[in-house]
Amino acid sequence: MTSHGKLRREKGSLAEYESQMKDLRAQLTDQIKILDSQVEVKQQQLSDLSEFLRRRGDIESEYARALDKLTERFTHKTKKKEQWGQSVCQVWSVLLTQTRLESREHAALGDTCCNALTQRLTYSTEDTHRLHKRSKEVGIQMQDELLKVTTELQTVSALKTYNQYHTDCLIAEGKLKEAERLEERHTGKSAELGPGQLVGQRRSSVKKMERLMEKVMQETQLKCTKARNDYLLNLAASNAAMNKYYLQDVSTLIDCCDLGFHLSVERVMKCYLASRWRIQKTEEMGLKQLESAVTSLDQSGDRDALLQQHDAAFCLPFRFNYHPHEGDQVKLLAESQVRYELETRFQQLQSRLAAVTLETEEISKTLKATLAALLDNMCDSDSNPSPDVPSSLSHEPPGGGTLPKLTLAKRRANQQETETYYFTVNCTGFSLVGEN
Amino acid sequence: MTSHGKLRREKGSLAEYESQMKDLRAQLTDQIKILDSQVEVKQQQLSDLSEFLRRRGDIESEYARALDKLTERFTHKTKKKEQWGQSVCQVWSVLLTQTRLESREHAALGDTCCNALTQRLTYSTEDTHRLHKRSKEVGIQMQDELLKVTTELQTVSALKTYNQYHTDCLIAEGKLKEAERLEERHTGKSAELGPGQLVGQRRSSVKKMERLMEKVMQETQLKCTKARNDYLLNLAASNAAMNKYYLQDVSTLIDCCDLGFHLSVERVMKCYLASRWRIQKTEEMGLKQLESAVTSLDQSGDRDALLQQHDAAFCLPFRFNYHPHEGDQVKLLAESQVRYELETRFQQLQSRLAAVTLETEEISKTLKATLAALLDNMCDSDSNPSPDVPSSLSHEPPGGGTLPKLTLAKRRANQQETETYYFTVNCTGFSLVGEN
Repeated sequence: MTSHGKLRREKGSLAEYESQMKDLRAQLTDQIKILDSQVEVKQQQLSDLSEFLRRRGDIESEYARALDKLTERFTHKTKKKEQWGQSVCQVWSVLLTQTRLESREHAALGDTCCNALTQRLTYSTEDTHRLHKRSKEVGIQMQDELLKVTTELQTVSALKTYNQYHTDCLIAEGKLKEAERLEERHTGKSAELGPGQLVGQRRSSVKKMERLMEKVMQETQLKCTKARNDYLLNLAASNAAMNKYYLQDVSTLIDCCDLGFHLSVERVMKCYLASRWRIQKTEEMGLKQLESAVTSLDQSGDRDALLQQHDAAFCLPFRFNYHPHEGDQVKLLAESQVRYELETRFQQLQSRLAAVTLETEEISKTLKATLAALLDNMCDSDSNPSPDVPSSLSHEPPGGGTLPKLTLAKRRANQQETETYYFTVNCTGFSLVGEN
Repeated sequence: MTSHGKLRREKGSLAEYESQMKDLRAQLTDQIKILDSQVEVKQQQLSDLSEFLRRRGDIESEYARALDKLTERFTHKTKKKEQWGQSVCQVWSVLLTQTRLESREHAALGDTCCNALTQRLTYSTEDTHRLHKRSKEVGIQMQDELLKVTTELQTVSALKTYNQYHTDCLIAEGKLKEAERLEERHTGKSAELGPGQLVGQRRSSVKKMERLMEKVMQETQLKCTKARNDYLLNLAASNAAMNKYYLQDVSTLIDCCDLGFHLSVERVMKCYLASRWRIQKTEEMGLKQLESAVTSLDQSGDRDALLQQHDAAFCLPFRFNYHPHEGDQVKLLAESQVRYELETRFQQLQSRLAAVTLETEEISKTLKATLAALLDNMCDSDSNPSPDVPSSLSHEPPGGGTLPKLTLAKRRANQQETETYYFTVNCTGFSLVGEN
């Protein structure tokens, strides 16, 4: 039964070892499979990024072309046109200049995306493929090393040798015990029969046999110890190799596969970002210039410029001169009778002037209020969407769209009413002041 | 000759007046013409701006559509794809999210340009047209007033009356002098002839005549003074009307024409700017997020995540266990003879380990340097255009393009050489450490 138990244990430990080795092989194969799938994922990512950037580049180039065409169209038109309204022209000019610069920057982005970046990603794809192939080779080599260390060649043979010598050892031990038992029996018999030559001879042969057995057993034990030591050292080496492979080599292997991948993506994205930031900067500068031009819109300034430009038509042309007869004075003559008439007329004019001035002041106030209302109305005429809410985000219910339209029509009607009033009052002002 | 001179002067002053009035009429007509041309310029400007914004809106909408399509295409793809390389996926995800937001903002700009802004400009065009018509009416009315004040009806008639009465006055004066001369002659004769009834009679009739003449002359002088005063007052009124028209009314007239024009342009541009600034803000935020995702690219992190994700394939599976026979110790047994052998082996291993460690350290240094060179090479492989110079701006001569290509090929070859070296050294490292 002891021999049976040993055999079972031996078989058990071999079976455990073999099952472990089977698992290990399966795991190593899985690892290579995962590396293979990883390289596919990476190449897909690179190809997606490349396609994305190429398409984005095309979109940017198309956008740039469209903006350029737009700018060209209006630049030619503006050059031919009579320059009126300096401040309005300035807004136009900045708008066109800014659009031209935008077009240029977007074209540069398009070019970068379509050429430099996709080229870089193509190289990166090649690199990834080649590095994967090489890494896989190295990986398989590493796995072979690991298997060599852990496989039967060393460990199993050490285990088997250990088991063999252990068995030998047990056999030798058994034989020694048998020899000792024999000797004891002979010693007992010889004590019964009394000492004799034959007994002495047999005894010495048993002793000899016993020593031989002891020597064999010691040798076997030594061999067994060595085998056990070898087995233990091999086990330690295998475990060390496993540790090294799993805790270091696998990471290194993946790092080799990934070599430069993140860096390439980073460089590509940084280049893309740099191009985008350039656009951002250009557009911000342009918008600020446009903002400043819009803030400088100046109705009075433009009116004065117009008056200066058409000086001949708008300057006060002359004074009506007094052509007196010789000896006539320029002053009014106010002799007795005439003086009375003049004084009466002066008083009439004064009271009329006072009335008109009062009326004019009233009208002036009304005019100012009307003008303010009119301008308010003009600027609110598009139902004034708040600039902080993009119009696409304010989803009106389909039926609700009619309400603002009505209000808008009403506003427009209001505006024209106010306008009519403004002009009527303004004309009254003109004619009142025109009379004398 | 005196009468001739007077006539000439009178004719001269009338001619000057008439020429002035002719100039004035021409100038007033020019003014209306200029106002007409101004409204054309303004309407052209509004129509140009409207067309520009509509086209820009179309460009923005098209751009937004293209970006949206691009995002959709890759969003679907990415969702299906195996999630590998968390940090790389994060960059992808931010890139797509940002592009989607950009698309939305550009769509909003396109919508604003095509609808709200062009609508506003249409109203502005209507307003400009109507205001011009009304202003022109008011202008013509003002000009009529001016002409009424300055025209013959008042000034010329005053001048003519003045001249007439002045002539009458002179005639009356002449007659009076004649009468006085007559009286003097009669007085002289009667003194010669001595006093008589007839002489007394004639003398009293002459006196009577003289008084009559004097009265006529005084009346004529009074009329003349009144006419002169009227003439002077009319002149002053005309000049005042001219001043008022040229220095105030013309400005007011142009202001009425321009009413709300600058304000409308300003509102439209501010709305456009607000939409553009929103894009700017969104893009800046997006670029910052993308930048942060790119900065967070992490090869080691992704490797560790991969190891965790495929835990079953990469974790250390087991230790090889020691299966001792009953009573065997786990420790190495180092009895006398075995101990010597073990010690020898240990010493051999130690010296081997020292040599390998030294070698490994050397290799490790070489590896690090090689890796750095390799990564440098990988990232320089696209001849590294400086991110501050848009590639479209660096115009190479057509023949000069071959030089960078050659260098590029050389670089790529270099890279692969370095790579081969890196892998060879790395493998040596693996196998060296793998041996025991």
